Amino acid sequence: MKNTNPLLVPELRELLATKDGKTIRDLCETGHPANVADLISPLEPKEVWAILEYLNSELRAEIFRHLDEDVQIEIMEDLPRKEVAHILAEMHPDDRADLFKQLPESLQESVLPAMAQAEREDIRRLISFREGTAGAVMTSDYAALPPQLTAAQAIDRLREVAPDKETIYYAYVVDDERKLLGYVSLKDLIIARRDARVEAIMQTEAVYCRVDDDQEDAARKIQKYDLLALPVLNGGDALVGIITHDDALDIITQEHTEDMEKFMAIAGSHEDSVYIKTSAWRHFKNRAPWVVLLAILGLLSGFIVQSFEGLLFQFAILLTFMPMLAATGGNTGSQAASLVVRALALREIHPRDILGILTKEFQVSLMLAILLGVIAFARVMIFEGNANTPGNSLLTVGLAISIALGLQVITSTLIGALLPLGAAKLKLDPAVVASPALTTIVDITGLLIFFLTAKTMLSI
Amino acid sequence: MKNTNPLLVPELRELLATKDGKTIRDLCETGHPANVADLISPLEPKEVWAILEYLNSELRAEIFRHLDEDVQIEIMEDLPRKEVAHILAEMHPDDRADLFKQLPESLQESVLPAMAQAEREDIRRLISFREGTAGAVMTSDYAALPPQLTAAQAIDRLREVAPDKETIYYAYVVDDERKLLGYVSLKDLIIARRDARVEAIMQTEAVYCRVDDDQEDAARKIQKYDLLALPVLNGGDALVGIITHDDALDIITQEHTEDMEKFMAIAGSHEDSVYIKTSAWRHFKNRAPWVVLLAILGLLSGFIVQSFEGLLFQFAILLTFMPMLAATGGNTGSQAASLVVRALALREIHPRDILGILTKEFQVSLMLAILLGVIAFARVMIFEGNANTPGNSLLTVGLAISIALGLQVITSTLIGALLPLGAAKLKLDPAVVASPALTTIVDITGLLIFFLTAKTMLSI
Repeated sequence: MKNTNPLLVPELRELLATKDGKTIRDLCETGHPANVADLISPLEPKEVWAILEYLNSELRAEIFRHLDEDVQIEIMEDLPRKEVAHILAEMHPDDRADLFKQLPESLQESVLPAMAQAEREDIRRLISFREGTAGAVMTSDYAALPPQLTAAQAIDRLREVAPDKETIYYAYVVDDERKLLGYVSLKDLIIARRDARVEAIMQTEAVYCRVDDDQEDAARKIQKYDLLALPVLNGGDALVGIITHDDALDIITQEHTEDMEKFMAIAGSHEDSVYIKTSAWRHFKNRAPWVVLLAILGLLSGFIVQSFEGLLFQFAILLTFMPMLAATGGNTGSQAASLVVRALALREIHPRDILGILTKEFQVSLMLAILLGVIAFARVMIFEGNANTPGNSLLTVGLAISIALGLQVITSTLIGALLPLGAAKLKLDPAVVASPALTTIVDITGLLIFFLTAKTMLSI
Repeated sequence: MKNTNPLLVPELRELLATKDGKTIRDLCETGHPANVADLISPLEPKEVWAILEYLNSELRAEIFRHLDEDVQIEIMEDLPRKEVAHILAEMHPDDRADLFKQLPESLQESVLPAMAQAEREDIRRLISFREGTAGAVMTSDYAALPPQLTAAQAIDRLREVAPDKETIYYAYVVDDERKLLGYVSLKDLIIARRDARVEAIMQTEAVYCRVDDDQEDAARKIQKYDLLALPVLNGGDALVGIITHDDALDIITQEHTEDMEKFMAIAGSHEDSVYIKTSAWRHFKNRAPWVVLLAILGLLSGFIVQSFEGLLFQFAILLTFMPMLAATGGNTGSQAASLVVRALALREIHPRDILGILTKEFQVSLMLAILLGVIAFARVMIFEGNANTPGNSLLTVGLAISIALGLQVITSTLIGALLPLGAAKLKLDPAVVASPALTTIVDITGLLIFFLTAKTMLSI
């Protein structure tokens, strides 16, 4: 819950108006920086900055880092470029590169020359990685050690560099060309004899990823191996950065949000947008493309219904089952699709397991088909005693409807499982073909199955 | 990807058959325990255990911990209770309690007396917390320090306890009654002067949670504050455990899976089940309840269609738009619902923001309604030139369809936003009322809106 106490806004404005720096400092120093950021977020960006200006640069950077990205950008747009360069210099390299990418181009160009050369190059390097790769989320502030140090020397070294590093709990052991030899945890260093060599203590089988690996694969490695950080290597096997455990949490949350939105047919990139702060127009632009596309596909279903008009007018009872047929196909297909998408995301299955998956889905769908067929049949026999079924017995009509429904359940389940597997095989995101697109497809196949089964089984 | 190399199974069996302990040990010692667990998982549980028996107890415990829970349980069921007690003793307290809960009751009862008193009590205490609470996922293996130690003494103390603790990177400072006074990171201890007191260095504003807090809230705190571990307090403010960063990753992944399954109408608890290992029958039992319930609700929609049969036969053109209407209502409703569910889960919005959310959704849906209304109207005017519209101009029919579609879009969007907010207000999980249940509801409201609008606007 953000803005847990919007009542504080007038008080904060009062403090700013009376230039009560001491109270502002006290207030900002007692809370956790993330909470202070929440507290001052409801203010205008200019006011937020006015508050931050009262603080020392370390605390200011900590609080700034926890502000929403849109607030950060608005603040920066109003500041002189020297000040912007100063804020960027105080940030973690990965956060800094992320934020820099979001700045207006003119500001990017004006601010770069105002930065120190090392930082400028760091930003240029980090923003060069494609969005969504390990390189784009890694930080360059990791601790590295040469292999020949003793444990005591290594601890001393880590103590010195601690203020500038994102973590000193893992230190990466590299050779002169920054090739990764292994890693050592601070725990291992502390437990080891003071004169033990780092190369003797280090774990040599370090789990790592490459700069162009998918960020989710990197996060899943951190999860699988319970790591605090994962080293990132470039094509030449040199260590270029690390991804930390807190980044892994954010990546997995972001990927889940994206999956969910793909499932629910919402376009656009939302990684940093917050529901309530996104304008209605932006929401509209994100949602409209899919809704319109699917509505147009829905019109296709309409053409199918239209072409079987005659059959429907002859057997009005079929009309009654159309909504159930559509709903059931969509539901069974979505179930299969979401289980497959999820299992793929958690690396439980692989596209090459396709036969086993289809076998399982066929078994499940057959059971569902029988169950639902029986229900539909019962519905016909119980409620449609006086339905008009010219030239056919009620039994035949009931059987036709049940069989059509059963076929619909089986095909939509198999389509639901196949689509994400196919997407994964083609290296697309499986989630994108799931739910709404799927529902529309099985609507169309379902109507065809329904009408063709009815036409075949009934004497017209 | 599990079982990346199933070809190794025959080789592993060969090694077991020839009792080649040395090669087995070499193989298990070179890989990461998580990878070794994946490698031997395809074997029968008895064979997995036969391999583990060749290893020293520390490595055995590490690999065992990475096996899937169902394999762990199958192994334990075949072992003498002494051996089971021994395996449990080697596990982390939180993993141990989780596994213990899953064991058959008879095994639970026989194994408890075989365990040491402290472990027995630890298990009893941990399993007493309700599933899904912070208490049920915390571990009791945390490092605690008295406030009056110096930094050097504290580091010595942490070095001593390191082998038994899940993390020594955070140490919790407690008084004689185990009340939490603050925490200190190993980094702070290393940077501090050797004779600085822990109470002078420690962070006093420690973020914490309570044993009965929701596990997801605890995980979100770890994420928000970038923590390595979160202390868990009981009702009397005493520290009773911690939740570590790797648990937070697992909790958030588990909650994602559950949300997704609720969205896709899949019942049952899957927290530990793996797609491919779950039997078709179990899949069926998980999926059938919702599919059947929704199919029965679909039959309700059928009754509505049936009661407007006369209208449909008079204006066959309405039939053509039924699939599009149903699909669009479902899609716009799901979009609104998924955004609201997600924003609630990420704590971006609160049920009390209902007015702001409805205003935003109304604006978005109005824009979508106009856009889709225009498309439907164009579809009527372009493709239905010679449609049979007795007693009404094509223009009137086109307008009636567009207005009906627009009303459907607006109501289903608002219903989509309201349902999860209502559920959250009632302290239910918002995800449970989302997608498929929602689609079925807006199918029903959509059909009613469609037919009533048509009936009102057209002269019959």
